[in-house]
Amino acid sequence: MSERQRRKLDHVRLAVAGPGARAGGAGWEDVHLVHRSLPELATHEIDLRTSICGVPLARPVMINAMTGGAPGVTAINRDLAAAAAELGLAMAVGSQTAGLREPEVVESYRVVRRVNPRGVILANLGSDATPEQARAAVEMVEADLLQLHLNAPQELRMREGDRDFRGRLERIARIVQELSVPVVVKECGFGVSRETARQLYEAGVRAIDVSGRGGTNFVWIEDRRAGVVEGDPGLEGWGLPAACALAEVAALDLSGLELIASGGIRHGTDAAKALALGARAVAVAGPVLARQQREGAAGVRAYLEGLLADLQTACLLCGARDLAALQRQPVVITGLVGEWCRLRGVDLAALANRSQP
Amino acid sequence: MSERQRRKLDHVRLAVAGPGARAGGAGWEDVHLVHRSLPELATHEIDLRTSICGVPLARPVMINAMTGGAPGVTAINRDLAAAAAELGLAMAVGSQTAGLREPEVVESYRVVRRVNPRGVILANLGSDATPEQARAAVEMVEADLLQLHLNAPQELRMREGDRDFRGRLERIARIVQELSVPVVVKECGFGVSRETARQLYEAGVRAIDVSGRGGTNFVWIEDRRAGVVEGDPGLEGWGLPAACALAEVAALDLSGLELIASGGIRHGTDAAKALALGARAVAVAGPVLARQQREGAAGVRAYLEGLLADLQTACLLCGARDLAALQRQPVVITGLVGEWCRLRGVDLAALANRSQP
Amino acid sequence: MSERQRRKLDHVRLAVAGPGARAGGAGWEDVHLVHRSLPELATHEIDLRTSICGVPLARPVMINAMTGGAPGVTAINRDLAAAAAELGLAMAVGSQTAGLREPEVVESYRVVRRVNPRGVILANLGSDATPEQARAAVEMVEADLLQLHLNAPQELRMREGDRDFRGRLERIARIVQELSVPVVVKECGFGVSRETARQLYEAGVRAIDVSGRGGTNFVWIEDRRAGVVEGDPGLEGWGLPAACALAEVAALDLSGLELIASGGIRHGTDAAKALALGARAVAVAGPVLARQQREGAAGVRAYLEGLLADLQTACLLCGARDLAALQRQPVVITGLVGEWCRLRGVDLAALANRSQP
Amino acid sequence: MSERQRRKLDHVRLAVAGPGARAGGAGWEDVHLVHRSLPELATHEIDLRTSICGVPLARPVMINAMTGGAPGVTAINRDLAAAAAELGLAMAVGSQTAGLREPEVVESYRVVRRVNPRGVILANLGSDATPEQARAAVEMVEADLLQLHLNAPQELRMREGDRDFRGRLERIARIVQELSVPVVVKECGFGVSRETARQLYEAGVRAIDVSGRGGTNFVWIEDRRAGVVEGDPGLEGWGLPAACALAEVAALDLSGLELIASGGIRHGTDAAKALALGARAVAVAGPVLARQQREGAAGVRAYLEGLLADLQTACLLCGARDLAALQRQPVVITGLVGEWCRLRGVDLAALANRSQP
Ligand SMILES: Cc1cc2nc3c(=O)[nH]c(=O)nc-3n(C[C@H](O)[C@H](O)[C@H](O)COP(=O)(O)O)c2cc1C
Ligand SMILES: Cc1cc2nc3c(=O)[nH]c(=O)nc-3n(C[C@H](O)[C@H](O)[C@H](O)COP(=O)(O)O)c2cc1C
Ligand SMILES: Cc1cc2nc3c(=O)[nH]c(=O)nc-3n(C[C@H](O)[C@H](O)[C@H](O)COP(=O)(O)O)c2cc1C
Ligand SMILES: Cc1cc2nc3c(=O)[nH]c(=O)nc-3n(C[C@H](O)[C@H](O)[C@H](O)COP(=O)(O)O)c2cc1C
Repeated sequence: MSERQRRKLDHVRLAVAGPGARAGGAGWEDVHLVHRSLPELATHEIDLRTSICGVPLARPVMINAMTGGAPGVTAINRDLAAAAAELGLAMAVGSQTAGLREPEVVESYRVVRRVNPRGVILANLGSDATPEQARAAVEMVEADLLQLHLNAPQELRMREGDRDFRGRLERIARIVQELSVPVVVKECGFGVSRETARQLYEAGVRAIDVSGRGGTNFVWIEDRRAGVVEGDPGLEGWGLPAACALAEVAALDLSGLELIASGGIRHGTDAAKALALGARAVAVAGPVLARQQREGAAGVRAYLEGLLADLQTACLLCGARDLAALQRQPVVITGLVGEWCRLRGVDLAALANRSQP
Repeated sequence: MSERQRRKLDHVRLAVAGPGARAGGAGWEDVHLVHRSLPELATHEIDLRTSICGVPLARPVMINAMTGGAPGVTAINRDLAAAAAELGLAMAVGSQTAGLREPEVVESYRVVRRVNPRGVILANLGSDATPEQARAAVEMVEADLLQLHLNAPQELRMREGDRDFRGRLERIARIVQELSVPVVVKECGFGVSRETARQLYEAGVRAIDVSGRGGTNFVWIEDRRAGVVEGDPGLEGWGLPAACALAEVAALDLSGLELIASGGIRHGTDAAKALALGARAVAVAGPVLARQQREGAAGVRAYLEGLLADLQTACLLCGARDLAALQRQPVVITGLVGEWCRLRGVDLAALANRSQP
Repeated sequence: MSERQRRKLDHVRLAVAGPGARAGGAGWEDVHLVHRSLPELATHEIDLRTSICGVPLARPVMINAMTGGAPGVTAINRDLAAAAAELGLAMAVGSQTAGLREPEVVESYRVVRRVNPRGVILANLGSDATPEQARAAVEMVEADLLQLHLNAPQELRMREGDRDFRGRLERIARIVQELSVPVVVKECGFGVSRETARQLYEAGVRAIDVSGRGGTNFVWIEDRRAGVVEGDPGLEGWGLPAACALAEVAALDLSGLELIASGGIRHGTDAAKALALGARAVAVAGPVLARQQREGAAGVRAYLEGLLADLQTACLLCGARDLAALQRQPVVITGLVGEWCRLRGVDLAALANRSQP
Repeated sequence: MSERQRRKLDHVRLAVAGPGARAGGAGWEDVHLVHRSLPELATHEIDLRTSICGVPLARPVMINAMTGGAPGVTAINRDLAAAAAELGLAMAVGSQTAGLREPEVVESYRVVRRVNPRGVILANLGSDATPEQARAAVEMVEADLLQLHLNAPQELRMREGDRDFRGRLERIARIVQELSVPVVVKECGFGVSRETARQLYEAGVRAIDVSGRGGTNFVWIEDRRAGVVEGDPGLEGWGLPAACALAEVAALDLSGLELIASGGIRHGTDAAKALALGARAVAVAGPVLARQQREGAAGVRAYLEGLLADLQTACLLCGARDLAALQRQPVVITGLVGEWCRLRGVDLAALANRSQP
């Protein structure tokens, strides 16, 4: 097994074992939807269809990028793709660098398209990719969109990781311009800040997955891989809590910028809160993997069905028939997330007093 | 036993067992009355008589809607009604849908009137009731008032529950207009928000029981009934904390709207705080039931006597001889409830500096 | 033993046993003095002499009213008086009602004057006293000042307690006018609020011991005496936290009103904070008693010496040579006490930015 | 062994044993750097060179003053100096009063210069030193700078400690004027406040180590030495949390004043936060000693290398190539430190919205 392949398996094992695979620290509990006793809606009327850069999604929940690149993970991707197909969810594959370099692992990615021929699939590469690599990655899984991921904290904690992050923005800009499919730039659990979002927007990016802190924690994972006993808690907790990242980027209100929220989304109400704060879709990684490891495809499906049902319930209880309506509901933000938002220029009173239709 | 009857018994059992049957999360501990060392009052001068829509209540504490509809619960209602009669408290029966459909369970409701012929009794139906059903429910117990309850979160967690909540407001408006007794619209532990209150007010409703989160928790109960192991904590904690609901609806200051506070009212000081924030009466459900189950009518009576005595003590210690005086006392709101209120437009400084007479 | 005598012993026993005899909830930990690295002072220069209504006190710490009225407590008062004499501290006796009615217990009060013939001694009566009783109480211990105590919450929790609190203000006003020694009106651990302070001031009172919540807790004590198992937590925590009471009354800035701070003062820094917030003296009850019970007069003395030394240390570390200087030091108030103060009109920014000389 | 020598050993032992040798209470966790997903930097570009009063430092981390003055501690200073030399860090020796009085312990200080002939070394004396003593201390270790320490709280807790703190400011002013090397005035874990900083600045001081509360705690240490069982928690927690001290002094923005941050700096991210708040360097004492005691010079080196690497990581993740850039990054301050700062006039919104370049 190549070192890269072993790493992929380490990630799976540690993501499932780690504290980051459970909730906590993402800040969703500081975000409160306002109950509506008279929703004047029926569940069957609720329609949460959405789209990312024009690609229609039947539901506003995706399976986020995780794996591929080692023979041992093909089964994981198969299970995830099966659940995605059954539930009509978009799904991203894990970083395809390995797939571009090691032909014998290409199948571990392709399986996703084979199992789910008509679904929305996102290719995934790091932000140092070239347009050619991007095209190849998209082709590999016949992707509808490409994710470019930003994961500097993780790289810096890996002995074998990148140390040079120059020129990334330009590479992203080139890919956005030249690629035939739309590009989503995503973090990996450290949160896109207002400043980063503005940089990306100016580089032409029109879809960002803010992927904040509080869910899967790749500094914690890499520190365990490296045998670190007591890491710097400031690094093991590095990044913007997911709710803070989403709220502050949404408050920029950049015209035409579409947001995806991920990082510690665990339950239907987390998803509802993120959507109410302005995300067009949410994405989940860690817990999907945990269920796959424990219970296979059936576990993944059961988990996601539950999350979707709870999301629908939350929407109904806000009286929101669709995402546009949900995004007009009042949202009350308290605690640490409230403090953060107030200091970073989010208008909390406006959010708390938005008018329900 | 019909499924509905079995459900009634489940509710009793789980309400008593559940965490929701104890305090926590209602926010009353964030509401502070201001001690007055020189009350210049005697306990015998304190007179907390009140009224709801013109129906006089000897005391501002009611036993809220709980049960009826199964042969096994007749004894419960008998005990509650006996205590209500002895203490001069208004009491609501549980939802009478069962009583309207299954003649053999009518007695489980009627017992309340039989035991307490002169007391104030509230009939209870869901908000999908017709005026005819409303009239029949009122007649069944010779009710002085009718409660229409809103419990969408509970319904959505019941396999057998409602999924269509359209047309409720209109039905409520019809009943309010056509019924001969006044109507109280009540939540069931999820909290009436400012927006919902305004809708109800515009539909003609003049009495609302805000019944907020923090006491009996029907999502938790239904999740246990459904065998859910780990429910969405955002749903199991759904709703406005009772103190938030009351404060924000009271701050609307809608002319002629009367408020009842319930949800996690457990002690006399909780009641005093709710009354000081503007409620005309408070209502208690879960703990009354718990005492009935453990100790019968005597337990109910002992509990309510204690609560009434502590309420009187709290009033005296604020120097408030009656509810009007209590509602002029300063109230200091801190913590999460304070954050919520500030964002939702409650004038906390005005409350904290109201002048004592 | 008379019932009253037994009660005195109960109070001693429960005050020492109770949670209220330890710190917690008084809020002193939310009050922060600002360290001064260059105090430019020597400890021997520090002079904390003060006065209450013209009666000079060698130190700004008093032993607050506790006991007397039962043969069994004479030894307590003897020990306390001995420590007071040695350290030059003012000391109050417990309520003298018993002494006025039962001649055989007079000695339990007089011992205080006998042991400490030249010290400052405060007589103590309830606010329902007559001027004649006040005079008699003062004479009994040749008192320099008279404390009139307010303890409505305690009375209401005692089966044998008062229920009628009318006319107290007038009685206080009469005693203030007619008595030859100055009068201090004091709470008993429930806190004098801004509103109460204003009432007292208008009635002519010029010295108030705010005695707030957080130290000895007489609702808790009486509930235990009455065999209450689970009391109303809102009553067992009734009253203004001592720091809140002091801050809000001090902020009234009533000309000529002198404040004493008590309630949960346990350490020298608690005392320093109270003095910095505007008290002319602090008073301690519960912990003094606890040390007397465990270690006799020597324990009392050791405890108070430690407190006085730590107070001196705190003053030096603020660069404050005397009380006037201490009261010009910046004080930063955070947490719950900060929230309370802000809502009740205390100017926190002014306190935090007071100029050191 | 002289009493002073025994004290030196006690300090080492208790500093390592104490709770203060671990983090907690310094407030660094309330200070949040803002992650930048696109740093557009390479680690090798990062250059954190700095200077104090014109003395260049290769890295913005120093080993703060600890020991010397007893034969038993020579090995400690040798180990620390060896690590300092290897890593190019400045290092301060402990107070040299002993060295000036007891010739047989001079070697315990000189070893630092011998082991590290070209490094930056800081001499250390108390603020009661004379210019002659200052010169002698500098000469003893051929120091590049002199630290004058302020430690009034510690002195006051030592039976043998100072009680007279008059004239210190003048002595400091004299030394600053007359000495040939620059002078850093430092606290010892109690925090320099805004007021103290202004006094020092007006006396001519141009470098302050704010050394705040939350790391090594010398009141706790001296209380243990003195056999105190339960000290005044207000004294054992005396002082400004390090983050508060730094933030409020930095906000003064005194032209030409250079700040060093110490007190509870344990990790690279703590250092990064302090530097971002305006410190030119940070200094670490307790944990360096703890590692020396457990693992010798190698442990010290491993610890400091880790800290430096994590600091570099944090800078890169903020996109800051040097200290000037780091000090333009947004910093979000919440919790108790946020409350403190707001009350003491720090402009939190300006800090949170500083523009990244
Ligand atoms: C095992 C595992 C592998 C991952 N690999 C990738 C990856 O290759 N590319 C990527 O963009 N994100 C990757 N991620 C990050 C996720 O897409 C997501 O941003 C992050 O896990 C936060 O979401 P969560 O809290 O729902 O897990 C991975 C996550 C996990 C759990
Ligand atoms: C066993 C049980 C059954 C209930 N059934 C009804 C009902 O039929 N109708 C209704 O309006 N509320 C019902 N409730 C809700 C209560 O009236 C009340 O709104 C809620 O329990 C919150 O108050 P609590 O915290 O004091 O229990 C029921 C509550 C309990 C505990
Ligand atoms: C055993 C005991 C008896 C007390 N009796 C009296 C009393 O007779 N009169 C009075 O004014 N206060 C009395 N107090 C109240 C104290 O004077 C003081 O206000 C209260 O205990 C709060 O201060 P602490 O927290 O330092 O105990 C008593 C306190 C104790 C502990
Ligand atoms: C064992 C020990 C001895 C110390 N001795 C001195 C000293 O002689 N002079 C001085 O200025 N500071 C002295 N300090 C204080 C440190 O320089 C520093 O200000 C304080 O420990 C806070 O930093 P820390 O939390 O990183 O330990 C000493 C610290 C320790 C742990």
